[in-house]
This record gives sequence, C-alpha cells and structure tokens, in this order.
Amino acid sequence: MPSYLITGASRGLGLAMLQALVSQPATQVTKIFAAYRTKTDGITQLSSSHNGRVIPVRMDVTSPDEIRAAVAQVEKALEGQPLDVLINNAGAAPTTPGGIVNMNDLTATLDLNVVGVQRVTQSFMPFLEKSAVKKIINISSTVGCFAYQEYLAQVNTPAYKVSKAALNMLTLLWAQEYGPKGYVIAGLSPGYVKTDLSGDAADLEVSEAIPAIMDAIEGISQGKNGRLLDIKLPGWEPRYLGGPQPW
Amino acid sequence: MPSYLITGASRGLGLAMLQALVSQPATQVTKIFAAYRTKTDGITQLSSSHNGRVIPVRMDVTSPDEIRAAVAQVEKALEGQPLDVLINNAGAAPTTPGGIVNMNDLTATLDLNVVGVQRVTQSFMPFLEKSAVKKIINISSTVGCFAYQEYLAQVNTPAYKVSKAALNMLTLLWAQEYGPKGYVIAGLSPGYVKTDLSGDAADLEVSEAIPAIMDAIEGISQGKNGRLLDIKLPGWEPRYLGGPQPW
Repeated sequence: MPSYLITGASRGLGLAMLQALVSQPATQVTKIFAAYRTKTDGITQLSSSHNGRVIPVRMDVTSPDEIRAAVAQVEKALEGQPLDVLINNAGAAPTTPGGIVNMNDLTATLDLNVVGVQRVTQSFMPFLEKSAVKKIINISSTVGCFAYQEYLAQVNTPAYKVSKAALNMLTLLWAQEYGPKGYVIAGLSPGYVKTDLSGDAADLEVSEAIPAIMDAIEGISQGKNGRLLDIKLPGWEPRYLGGPQPW
Repeated sequence: MPSYLITGASRGLGLAMLQALVSQPATQVTKIFAAYRTKTDGITQLSSSHNGRVIPVRMDVTSPDEIRAAVAQVEKALEGQPLDVLINNAGAAPTTPGGIVNMNDLTATLDLNVVGVQRVTQSFMPFLEKSAVKKIINISSTVGCFAYQEYLAQVNTPAYKVSKAALNMLTLLWAQEYGPKGYVIAGLSPGYVKTDLSGDAADLEVSEAIPAIMDAIEGISQGKNGRLLDIKLPGWEPRYLGGPQPW
C-alpha cells in the first residue's frame, strides 16, 4: 500500500501512526500526507528527516476552505498517482462535567468527529478511486457502541459517545455503497490509549497500542468492510480481541 | 398526564399528535404547548377552537434565541405548574440523490434532529423536574438502527440515518442518567407514515398511525426507559409489534 493520508497527524495516535508508517520501507509506503490543524514539531521533524515521503498538509477538517486547499496540494503532489489509504483520525473527546444537561459542545464535536470525516472522505474520493487498494479507515471508538453503554455510564464524554455512534453509522453507509465497488471502508477502535484525547488514566501506552493498530489497518480487507473493528492485543483478554464489535 | 410540549407541531405527525391530545378530556390533558418554526393554519385553528389548552409557541429548535424566548413564554403560562411530557418531534429527513459522496446536508440535519433535541431538553428540564410524570419522548426512527441497515440500503436519506443513530445514543445517555431520578426517557419510532417527511410511498395513513403512536406514548413507563420503541399495529406483523427495537 504505497500512499496514505492521515488526518489529525500532528499529535497523539495520528502522529504515532505517521511514525509507524514512515518507518516501513519506502517500497511499501511511498508517500504519507500528514494532515494537521496545528503544525507540531513532530510533523516538522518527520517531514524533514524523511524528505518527500512525509508531506505536511494544513487541513482543519472543520474548514471547507482548508480542505479545498489541501485537495489541491495533494493532487499536485500525487502527480496523477492514486491515494491508496485514507485514515480519518482527527477527533476530539471533550468531557462534560455535571451531567448531560450541561452538554453544550455537541455541535462542535459532531462537526469535527462526524461531518469532518464526511467532508474529507467526499473530497478525496477522486484520488482513492484511482487506487487498487481503496481503503478508508475511520478511527472510532467502542465508547460509541450502544452495546457497551451499560458499562460506560461513568465515562462523562456524552458528546463523544453521540458523535461516535453517528460516525459508526456514517462508516456503515459508506461501506454499504462502496464495498461492492472494490472499496474497504471500516471503523477501527484503537483501544484506550494514553494520549491527550484519553488522558493518563487510559490502559495502553502509545508504544503498546501502535503495532496492534497498524496490524489492524493492514489486515482490514473486504471481509471486514462496514464493520467496527477492535485491535488485537494478547494479554488483555477478554478485551482487545481484534474482532468486529457489536454496534 | 396534564401538560405537554410538542416540537414540530405545525404539521405532519406533530400536528396530528396535537389534535389527538386536544381531543382528550381537559382533565387528562390540561395544556399543550405547540412549538413551531412556521405557524400553520392547523395550529392557529386548534389554538382558537381550544382556547387556553393549545398554546402556540414559536420555537425553531435550531435557534438558541427562539428557545430562550419559548422557555420564558412557557414558564409564564405554566404559572409554577410542572411540564409533564416533552415530545421532541421536530425533524427532517432530506434525501441525497446520487449517493453518499454528495451528502452535504449532514450539518443541518444533525443540528435539527440531534442538537435541537439536546437544546430543547436541557432548556425545559426545570419544568419537567417539578412533574410527577417526567416523561420525555424523542421521535426517532428504526431507519437509524444499525440492525436494519441491510434492509435499508435503497433508502437514500443518509443524513437522516446518521442523525437518528446519533439521536438514539443521545436518548440512551439521557435515560441512563435520569432514569434513576424518576424520569422516563425513550425513543419512539412512529412507523412509516404518509407525511411531508416520508412522502406518499409510506405505509400508513396518519389516521391509522396516530392512535398507535398515542398509545405508545401513554404506555411508555419506567420499564421502557432508554429504549427505542416501535408502535403496535395489529395486521402489520411482523412489523409494528410495539416492542423495543434493536439498535
């Protein structure tokens, strides 16, 4: 799979995925478009130490203007070649202290976590269409699964939960339509990882989760189209079994 | 159950629910706040023929300003009495011709169908809190259920599907938090009814659906908190069985 676009690549899991991809041989990963809202040292360093393979792209996924400019930049850099894998990773998980009656960030959270994915996906489809791989991975979370809410009552991120339920439906609808056209479109729950998004209370170090995340992305093939997948991480049973999750 | 607030009461199912409520004895239904974005003859007629029981309230649920003004109006009209039942009915189901890549109405649809419910619910909680009934019904749809997507591939309302999945999660989260406090908060799928929203291809006449919808609203009690319920309509088996729906 030669070329990738990752959104939210400036920090957290996005930056770690970028590092993991660029550490693969250039024959396997030729180009990675690293989309960011705010440029970080992480992206700057990776792009200068892997000149030409990591291409920083300014793209706040909530900004149609920035997306349009990013499409133009990517089109130029691809020089007619396809984009093979799109990883919609940008997202936020704000907490709501004091209960759901105080939730006032639903608009912003839906715009970033759901509409952002729609905007980016629809905008980059012409480049994916040229690919033989045609893979779209939407980073989601089992926190958005109805089946798990009984166990998540104490997790006070209601806007995140609502947005991930919506994202899971969006993923399923895209997969339903584009699966028969040779695409693989799936959600991936990357695990509960110690990043700025989840905080230090999370289960997994980034270094522990990333190999499992990259394996999952690599392993998502037609049979998993339209599913929400978990990472596989031995030693954490009955969690992280690597299978499709219940909605 | 004496007092109700219905959003989207100017036409379609909202207006039909309003008519059904006002036809009940004044001892059972004392006051109905009929919230509308655009006032229709339907609301005007009902409010003049049932003076004092039907109270038109201008409230576009996408407008925080209109919601604030509506809260002030309702507070005055309630004169310290509780609001017993809130029916979040306002919504839209836009179609997307040409496939999901063309879906550009997700922001507007989420704002109306999901954030609108959040805004209205959080704003009217102080009046529901005074009630012994404490019932919130969110009109949703099985079209937003993951379990049914296999059968709904030809239904080209992707923004509606995503919004109803999100609304179902929002309903569940509210129910989870407020069920233990004596509230009953549930989703209701009103059936596929011939209104402006669903069109003439739908299954049910409004007159056929409404008694089942009103029975469902009446029958939603603590045991159904946090569920998405179907209407019960004999003769349509295996559809419309009146039970909790899979997500």
